[in-house]
Amino acid sequence: MTHLRTFACLLPLAAMAACAQVSAPAAASATTPSVFGYRDFTQQAKWDATFMAVPDAKLAGEHLKVLTSAPHWASSPEDYATAVYVADKFKAAGLKTEIVPYRVRLTKPVSILVEAFDDGQKIMSGPTPEHVDPTKNGGDPFQDDPRILPAFNGSSPSGEVTAEVVYANYGTLADFKKLAELGVSVKDKIVLVRYGENFRGIKAYIAEQYGAKGVLIYSDPADDGYFRGDEYPKGPYRPASAVQRGSVQFLPIYPGDPDTPGVASTLQLPASSRLSESQLQNDEPNIPVNPLSWHDAEPILKALGGSESPRDWQGALPFTYHLGPGKVTVHMKLVEDNSLRTIWDVIGTIPGTEKDAPVIAGNHRDAWVYGAVDPNSGTAAMLETVHGLGVLLQQGWKPRRTIIIGSWDAEEEGLIGSTEWVEQHAGELAHAVAYFNTDVGVSGPSFDASAVPSLKEFVREVTKSVPSPAGGTVYDQWKKDQAANKGRRGHGSEHANTPPEKDVRIGNLGSGSDYTPFLQHIGVPSTDIGSDGPYGVYHSVFDNYNWFIKFADPTFVYEQQQARVFGLEILHMADADVLPYDYDLYGQNIVSYLTTAEEQATKAKLTLDFSAADAAAKRFAAAGAAIRAVQANPPAHTAALNVALREAEGALLNPVGLPKRPWYKHTIYSPGEFTGYAAVVIPGVTEGIEAADTERAQGQIVALADALNRSAAILEAVKK
Amino acid sequence: MTHLRTFACLLPLAAMAACAQVSAPAAASATTPSVFGYRDFTQQAKWDATFMAVPDAKLAGEHLKVLTSAPHWASSPEDYATAVYVADKFKAAGLKTEIVPYRVRLTKPVSILVEAFDDGQKIMSGPTPEHVDPTKNGGDPFQDDPRILPAFNGSSPSGEVTAEVVYANYGTLADFKKLAELGVSVKDKIVLVRYGENFRGIKAYIAEQYGAKGVLIYSDPADDGYFRGDEYPKGPYRPASAVQRGSVQFLPIYPGDPDTPGVASTLQLPASSRLSESQLQNDEPNIPVNPLSWHDAEPILKALGGSESPRDWQGALPFTYHLGPGKVTVHMKLVEDNSLRTIWDVIGTIPGTEKDAPVIAGNHRDAWVYGAVDPNSGTAAMLETVHGLGVLLQQGWKPRRTIIIGSWDAEEEGLIGSTEWVEQHAGELAHAVAYFNTDVGVSGPSFDASAVPSLKEFVREVTKSVPSPAGGTVYDQWKKDQAANKGRRGHGSEHANTPPEKDVRIGNLGSGSDYTPFLQHIGVPSTDIGSDGPYGVYHSVFDNYNWFIKFADPTFVYEQQQARVFGLEILHMADADVLPYDYDLYGQNIVSYLTTAEEQATKAKLTLDFSAADAAAKRFAAAGAAIRAVQANPPAHTAALNVALREAEGALLNPVGLPKRPWYKHTIYSPGEFTGYAAVVIPGVTEGIEAADTERAQGQIVALADALNRSAAILEAVKK
Repeated sequence: MTHLRTFACLLPLAAMAACAQVSAPAAASATTPSVFGYRDFTQQAKWDATFMAVPDAKLAGEHLKVLTSAPHWASSPEDYATAVYVADKFKAAGLKTEIVPYRVRLTKPVSILVEAFDDGQKIMSGPTPEHVDPTKNGGDPFQDDPRILPAFNGSSPSGEVTAEVVYANYGTLADFKKLAELGVSVKDKIVLVRYGENFRGIKAYIAEQYGAKGVLIYSDPADDGYFRGDEYPKGPYRPASAVQRGSVQFLPIYPGDPDTPGVASTLQLPASSRLSESQLQNDEPNIPVNPLSWHDAEPILKALGGSESPRDWQGALPFTYHLGPGKVTVHMKLVEDNSLRTIWDVIGTIPGTEKDAPVIAGNHRDAWVYGAVDPNSGTAAMLETVHGLGVLLQQGWKPRRTIIIGSWDAEEEGLIGSTEWVEQHAGELAHAVAYFNTDVGVSGPSFDASAVPSLKEFVREVTKSVPSPAGGTVYDQWKKDQAANKGRRGHGSEHANTPPEKDVRIGNLGSGSDYTPFLQHIGVPSTDIGSDGPYGVYHSVFDNYNWFIKFADPTFVYEQQQARVFGLEILHMADADVLPYDYDLYGQNIVSYLTTAEEQATKAKLTLDFSAADAAAKRFAAAGAAIRAVQANPPAHTAALNVALREAEGALLNPVGLPKRPWYKHTIYSPGEFTGYAAVVIPGVTEGIEAADTERAQGQIVALADALNRSAAILEAVKK
Repeated sequence: MTHLRTFACLLPLAAMAACAQVSAPAAASATTPSVFGYRDFTQQAKWDATFMAVPDAKLAGEHLKVLTSAPHWASSPEDYATAVYVADKFKAAGLKTEIVPYRVRLTKPVSILVEAFDDGQKIMSGPTPEHVDPTKNGGDPFQDDPRILPAFNGSSPSGEVTAEVVYANYGTLADFKKLAELGVSVKDKIVLVRYGENFRGIKAYIAEQYGAKGVLIYSDPADDGYFRGDEYPKGPYRPASAVQRGSVQFLPIYPGDPDTPGVASTLQLPASSRLSESQLQNDEPNIPVNPLSWHDAEPILKALGGSESPRDWQGALPFTYHLGPGKVTVHMKLVEDNSLRTIWDVIGTIPGTEKDAPVIAGNHRDAWVYGAVDPNSGTAAMLETVHGLGVLLQQGWKPRRTIIIGSWDAEEEGLIGSTEWVEQHAGELAHAVAYFNTDVGVSGPSFDASAVPSLKEFVREVTKSVPSPAGGTVYDQWKKDQAANKGRRGHGSEHANTPPEKDVRIGNLGSGSDYTPFLQHIGVPSTDIGSDGPYGVYHSVFDNYNWFIKFADPTFVYEQQQARVFGLEILHMADADVLPYDYDLYGQNIVSYLTTAEEQATKAKLTLDFSAADAAAKRFAAAGAAIRAVQANPPAHTAALNVALREAEGALLNPVGLPKRPWYKHTIYSPGEFTGYAAVVIPGVTEGIEAADTERAQGQIVALADALNRSAAILEAVKK
């Protein structure tokens, strides 16, 4: 799944190819650096050096090749084969390993038909198979596999509708409001929207609320096709027939198996514990939804009547976009099999001395088709991380904290593998000290990260210890790329640094990958890392090994880099004397979120009393600053300090959850109800204000104040 | 010609159609307004009311229909017929009228061939005739006239070249520099550029300097085609086959007949007084240049090899633009007839009591093809202005100052008719009190204007007295449109108000229409007005009566409006007691231009001494503020005051002209050497800094200081 943003620039691949393996820095130098969280880094520096030498570019390439040799949609036999491959590598490294099955509801397309008529004349019958000319630019060796499923949207119901069409741009709330303002109703229409701006499930969520009968989501060449750059296989961008598959689950309501919110879908779970059709909360569309290539969307859009669309709704197809309705009718007939199916997480464990405070790291393994970038570039890197941990184990290393590595299944259908596992082990996992995620591990050379504020400085520090294939450290290149405005997380309001950060920007965690159950359901501090580049084939057949070695990382040196960054995150969190959280920055950020919310409220002319939250935020910030001083000069015994540090994040959960979506419990970060991917900060308060719902907003201000006071009290109770 | 900028929004034509004639306001109301320049406005208010009732929407529509009934390229028999029509209307109104011929060098295409080959295969043979489907949206009734010349660029030499192609975006100096930086040479190549951003002649000027062998200029749909809105005949935008003709004269060097800079090309001028081939200053390309439709440019661009173009060079054609060179070869064979031809200005005069201080107003009459918008929407309005002046004459009105109305010929080839006339009468005209221009009179409902600062407030005041078909006054609508970001002059740095103006923005005068010889060669304060809308058919066959009545002004009420605004400009300037110039604002603007130039110099690390210019600008500004107080309370005898006011503008000329282009003598405004249309302020200084030429810049600072001191001294000498 992952949250993809457009990547603007292409670095010369030649520069990468020049360095097929990037050497680890020389072993711990004479002067050992001082690292936050460690009393003395000397021993850790030695382990780091040993670890850094292991992750191997060539081996990462081999993992990737094997993992992506066949389409491996969650629950398929090919998916199971990848679970076995991963489990074998875990075992070989010395991890206690198990393949953990869940029985979950998935959507599998049986037959998909979308056809369009202009004044009764058929102008399109699709979906057209994804295909590029095999005689040009080397063609594509993977496109003809009969195991490729037709392009579909997970969580769409079956359905047959025939209706006129309305074009609704990106299908954001603002877009639907604009249509209404222009007097164009989508009631009983099929809405045609383009990918981009928000999570696709949200497009369906809003369309359904506005009365649409069906939704078609296409990839406009303005967003990831020829307008951005050369199409695959000449370049990395989406060719005419390529479709972006993807789940249209209402992710901001709850992720995971739709039948079991808050409950693990183990094989033993009785059917009676699953929600029946009538009990289902509103977390999936009730109207048919399907993706289209621009090749199939073009005839519809071109023939559409009605007024000219607003000029900023114009995409890159060669005609003037109109809004409809009129002339064009579309017939959609989707037959989907929504049976229960078995999926397989792979869980590997390295026991530590402090068993009840595990460090968790994970990546999903299932793919819409081949998933070379999404997610197996992450899996390949993770396997080389595990390789490195295995070598440390052989040399007698034993981590202080238990390390758990998860290879999640069915992430694409809605973070299902990770969510069910978290729901199953919520009690133990509530004490986990961190969850480190990677999803799109490598699509190019530009490192980027998102994290809770308490771990932003931690991520930066780790990247200062890893060499970049482009020279200097990962951190150095990251800084350069941001100065040049590269990186997938390079725009969007949730990404701007909140003052007083003056360092490389690190995004906030919204949703779209497996950190969501950890952070937002059970309050485990999380990070998400990747190395990005121009990547136009997301969720299509062409996200395959051939694309990867042409455009992402031909010599796998960025795979190696990511294995190292991921590994150092795990090692440093597992072995630190004092948990290296930064509650000082966290507090400052929350204070500034409240300032913004107050400005929004004033602008919206809402009368709200922020005083309790303001006071609590200031108290939390003061406690954060104070605890940071303690962390820098820790007491002899750090157990109580570490427990407090850990529990302070958990205290930010509101046990009753957010309004409309109780599964989401974090008071500071969640995916936005109307964004899906992008984080909304202090979401209860912010969305109450956006909805101009004074009562809801005021209630959420109180809940936020309570959470901040709880968390501050925990930090304050630490003996100085 | 005119300086066209993109118009973003389409107002509902229904709103216009509702009011087929807009009534003039009731005759002078009980309380006569106080108008700057008049001791007592009572009598003028009566003349105004009489005048305002005359301009007639229906008659304007008839003029337009007659004038645009046939293609009337300058020097053609059809052009002569329009001269006779205009002269007849002038005479009918009581103007002393003559048709004034000049013998000038024009470019007429004999045969134009542009063909393209991809690996030897022919992929395009053009130019394709301009044609739209006659069965759709009413087709176009004008496109098949055999008198339509093939699309060509005036001032292109004949030539035959075959070469590889390089795409150079808009062909700005920055674009050519970028290509060089990317290692792509245009030496001996044919450069393919798109229209927009700068004057087309400048594209050729720079391409030639970079060693290109030929230039093709096409209209990208991103700039005035389907990307902006529906194509003609469905909408107002440029269809696939439509070509933008236009002169590629090096306008910023000098306009007019290329053989006679500074000299009038009268029929009597001996051949020996014309520059010979070898004496020609560099004011025309030496390489063949031709325009293309996107229909003809598309196959070339699509097949072009080389690197991907920078992403902001991507247009709206449906593939990724590459830079070339490679694979594609183009063969251009242009046969142009550059003979001397006769053109015809029409000059009408209403003698005033002060014969040596005429007010001049004008519009060109020649068109690339039919010229419904450019220029005859202006001509139709001007004829209704003349109609109104005629009624005043019948009623015994006699202007204080002589009024001269000019209908210029061969403007499209390089402001030839106006320039030759100005050159012929430079001595007398140097005392003219104003030149009021209109070119694209009406392409839609959004009023806009450019002017020297001394006339900005004058233009605003006039528009406050004219009703708008959309309700309120022209001024009211103008203000609304600017708030909504409409109007052709709505962007571009030369348009930003220089502090302290807080009123509607009025652009600076660069070039591209007939005010240039008046303002920039002989120092006559000038304005340029128009009423604009979405206008994608500029300089094509489709700028015709059918387009006009569908998209610009179906009921000619904006024609009526423009006739009224134009008329009040003339009347108020002709009859004012004190010339209504605002040297206060002029001075403040110049002070701020200098501040900007000093910042630019600092940024460019040039050491320049601005002190003389700073002191002179402050002196000029102080003199401007002082004279404005005198104008507000004028002495009994205003003759000396008016002479000073008039001569102060003339004193801003530098008799030796600008570096590299001595024909341009104004020290404050000129077209930019590398922009062509857009004004560069204090051009000698600014361009010296841009070229990092300290010596040139310092010399120009001194010249500017001299001019400002001369002008200030004239104002200061007025007895208070």
